[in-house]
Amino acid sequence: MSSWLDGQPGDGLPVHDRGLAYGDGLFETIRVADGRPLLFERHLQRLDEGCRRLAIPVDLEQLRGELVHFCRDLRQGVAKLILTRGTGQRGYAPPQPCQPRRLLLGSALPGYPAQHAESGVRLFPCATRLAEQPLLAGIKHLNRLEQVLARAEWQDPRYAEGLMRDMSGRVVEGVFSNLFLVVDGELRTATLQRCGVAGVMRAEIIAQASRLTIPVVECDIAYDELLRADEVFVCNGLYGIWPVIGLAERAWPVGALTRKLQSVVADLLSNS
Amino acid sequence: MSSWLDGQPGDGLPVHDRGLAYGDGLFETIRVADGRPLLFERHLQRLDEGCRRLAIPVDLEQLRGELVHFCRDLRQGVAKLILTRGTGQRGYAPPQPCQPRRLLLGSALPGYPAQHAESGVRLFPCATRLAEQPLLAGIKHLNRLEQVLARAEWQDPRYAEGLMRDMSGRVVEGVFSNLFLVVDGELRTATLQRCGVAGVMRAEIIAQASRLTIPVVECDIAYDELLRADEVFVCNGLYGIWPVIGLAERAWPVGALTRKLQSVVADLLSNS
Repeated sequence: MSSWLDGQPGDGLPVHDRGLAYGDGLFETIRVADGRPLLFERHLQRLDEGCRRLAIPVDLEQLRGELVHFCRDLRQGVAKLILTRGTGQRGYAPPQPCQPRRLLLGSALPGYPAQHAESGVRLFPCATRLAEQPLLAGIKHLNRLEQVLARAEWQDPRYAEGLMRDMSGRVVEGVFSNLFLVVDGELRTATLQRCGVAGVMRAEIIAQASRLTIPVVECDIAYDELLRADEVFVCNGLYGIWPVIGLAERAWPVGALTRKLQSVVADLLSNS
Repeated sequence: MSSWLDGQPGDGLPVHDRGLAYGDGLFETIRVADGRPLLFERHLQRLDEGCRRLAIPVDLEQLRGELVHFCRDLRQGVAKLILTRGTGQRGYAPPQPCQPRRLLLGSALPGYPAQHAESGVRLFPCATRLAEQPLLAGIKHLNRLEQVLARAEWQDPRYAEGLMRDMSGRVVEGVFSNLFLVVDGELRTATLQRCGVAGVMRAEIIAQASRLTIPVVECDIAYDELLRADEVFVCNGLYGIWPVIGLAERAWPVGALTRKLQSVVADLLSNS
């Protein structure tokens, strides 16, 4: 599929790029429908926040223009943006000035079984815990070995996602999703102040719930609290919402609030 | 300078490499003198351990042969090896089978002032803390944003290195060095069970101390204990040993044991 490097077709990253050397950069994985990037402003907002946290000087308007053009050409699928701090000399010190590098990769939408959205998914209980690093929590940076290790824990296709907890055992997210609980009609999701990725779909669901006057709380979530929840679902910007119907010995029905939000989100992913 | 990709001259990394996407790989930074890689077996041992921990199937003998050849051509300087899990499809799941990718980069030895080794260095007290992740502790993986953030904390050249502590405040290492204390004639260095990189020079110093019947302890090190130490030094495989002469308000003389080990290590770096 197509790849652009700094705005030009290209498929060879300079080997001294700091994205490779240190994971010194950020990424966004954007669903593209009919040539348009979905949840686009949320992706750009998160990227901007990541650049601020890592002190990568990004030209957001240049990037916006490039992404619009790239997605128009791609038509359908997934546009992945990788933004790195660019080429570096030896050593960790960020180059001054630095010239960030932009990589755009197009691919087809992953072929998730329709059943995941319809009947729900089971979560694999990952043993890999998320380390607590407030400086990196929430942003979508390129240091993703914890997710690689967690995803490598299972091959059994009966598990569509895995549950990740932090070092203290608190429930945080899925390996490639955020996670919500419904408790007494209230939505709950992890704060992501210590670890985790603040997904664009998570942000969209929080905004939509607010619009629908459904209470939403960002809080610490104990494992027991998850097991006692009335409904559970996972979400991301590519597939929308998958109801969670099983974790270890616990089984859940697909709940009414999950279905309601799923339908709102499905509309967004097809018509935004 | 020279770069080899999978054994051939090349300078464009395929853009779907997982080393870029997730920092899914390892690296080694090897000093080369007269065409020979120094502390070579220790570098290969650590790489092997990293591959085992990340389940990257490496052909260590192929890599050894390639490095020997590369270093022979380079003659003097630094050979950096980056080993990644290779090209991946979308998503965190490691490809099965996977074809690891080898990148070799040659450069000149960094131009550290001779004064660092002779008169000692001051440490910048980094505010960036190391997250605790036992699954990744000790190995030299490509997820290095914490080091990037820590190194970006100071530009003042009066600080040659920075001190990194863990989330609980324990003393761990430098940004690009390991750290040793001398307390009552005994060497102490952090265990690196929760975070940190187990440097090849650290391992060499532990072995040399043992040979010289100097007691060495790997243990937790409180910040107060560091401040009370008789001598402090930092080390790595490129520069050997730098005495530490200052941290915040504390000043140290360059100690006798530091000088002794420095001389042993300097011989290794010129004659091994």
